[in-house]
Amino acid sequence: MHQLFTERLRSRQAEKRSVVCVGLDPDPALLPPHLTTHATIAEATLAFNAAIIDATHAAVCAFKINLAFYEVLGSEGWRVLSETRRMIPDGVLVIADAKRGDIGNSARFYAEALFSHLDADACTVAPYMGRDAVTPFLQFPRKAAFVLGRTSNPGAADFQERTYDGEKLYLGVAKKVAEWAAGTPGEGGLVVGATGESALADIRRACPQLPFLVPGVGAQGGDARAVMRAARTDEGAVIVNSSRKILFASGGRDFAEAAAREVESLRILLERACAD
Amino acid sequence: MHQLFTERLRSRQAEKRSVVCVGLDPDPALLPPHLTTHATIAEATLAFNAAIIDATHAAVCAFKINLAFYEVLGSEGWRVLSETRRMIPDGVLVIADAKRGDIGNSARFYAEALFSHLDADACTVAPYMGRDAVTPFLQFPRKAAFVLGRTSNPGAADFQERTYDGEKLYLGVAKKVAEWAAGTPGEGGLVVGATGESALADIRRACPQLPFLVPGVGAQGGDARAVMRAARTDEGAVIVNSSRKILFASGGRDFAEAAAREVESLRILLERACAD
Repeated sequence: MHQLFTERLRSRQAEKRSVVCVGLDPDPALLPPHLTTHATIAEATLAFNAAIIDATHAAVCAFKINLAFYEVLGSEGWRVLSETRRMIPDGVLVIADAKRGDIGNSARFYAEALFSHLDADACTVAPYMGRDAVTPFLQFPRKAAFVLGRTSNPGAADFQERTYDGEKLYLGVAKKVAEWAAGTPGEGGLVVGATGESALADIRRACPQLPFLVPGVGAQGGDARAVMRAARTDEGAVIVNSSRKILFASGGRDFAEAAAREVESLRILLERACAD
Repeated sequence: MHQLFTERLRSRQAEKRSVVCVGLDPDPALLPPHLTTHATIAEATLAFNAAIIDATHAAVCAFKINLAFYEVLGSEGWRVLSETRRMIPDGVLVIADAKRGDIGNSARFYAEALFSHLDADACTVAPYMGRDAVTPFLQFPRKAAFVLGRTSNPGAADFQERTYDGEKLYLGVAKKVAEWAAGTPGEGGLVVGATGESALADIRRACPQLPFLVPGVGAQGGDARAVMRAARTDEGAVIVNSSRKILFASGGRDFAEAAAREVESLRILLERACAD
């Protein structure tokens, strides 16, 4: 564990020939009925996560844990989160998708919660407050902060796609993240949506070395091949996340096997896209 | 509790003649030594918060709870957070300063965690992902979402101060929040830093009715009188937050009395500024 985040990522991706990340977003309303009937939501969530991790870990480079799905459990949330994290085998990277964004001590404490207590390898960070909201996350050696760059939800057009001082906001953010990450003990990265091949290519040109975390291939309509072509280079790694399409591939007793099949399809699709 | 958030805020502010909000940011490193010597950090934090709330609640309109200071406690964090919230007497508004910003189910779950589990009256929200990140928080009747508008930290200049079609990003955000909040069951608000009187006035002109949450009077150099003059109108409420200057006014056994004195000074200062 003394390697850089990007080095660990590269060796894992090479070893498993997989850029797939599974998002552990266990929506309580979508858990298979046989898990929820005789258990609390917290216990059902843990049983679900355990089965998903067990069935899919050998074919993924990372798991992404979205904190909203745990905080909604109230006081049980952090326990379920920590236990889920502990279930993930060594070698698989863990990304805490928390999208925190605050300054000073608050930022440091969020980073400590995610990197030290939860022992995540990386987390997601919101850029609106600027450098003081991002750089505290970059002070942790061997950890990475993926900053929201360009997202693919409809609301992304409200601010990210506007041109400020001659440059799209998302591109301005991407360049700043590369600048801030240079020379810090930690590593920077970007969250970049799967839609918009030319935008992806622009961001990659501006930030040749940052790893990209790409959510929404599949469910949000991004085309896997286009994403890999535009975003992946020898220097610049790409992690492709999929959540619902994998977790809820089947709502029955075979949910874990169905998830494993989905992961394997996506893994192969992306491997071929890289080879093209 | 059937009134709107802004109605509850107005009656509380009128009754106590106070726009002061105390930020419950119990930095573990700054807790008085007599509390930490024979207790865990979680217990010391609870004892500290209990004394601060007891000594100051009668002179404030709200408490702001910054979640970073609780998440840093790890698995104990949510318990300390919930217990702190339960210590706050009826009538005092509770703002969960979480700066969450995500979309879809994630946003709904964050809102549910803060508004339902924690029973906060309001929370803070990050705008970078646009309307889908903000509107889920506006679906909760009698609750308010204070969206980051213009902050007063150095990094605010990185993006918020950039200009799009002749308009600063923070002003674009402010206008969108007013637009999104219109006609939703919940209420919108803005986080607006205390520095820059003319920026404050611009935002108030664009959003005459939104309540403003103003952090950083005092510690971050904002001038209380200028803030009230620029931001407070008959329609538009202002909440002025102060955290460290109050909590750590004394590091000794008299910390709660010292905090109460600081709150009373700030209350009087702001009351006079309103009367000017």
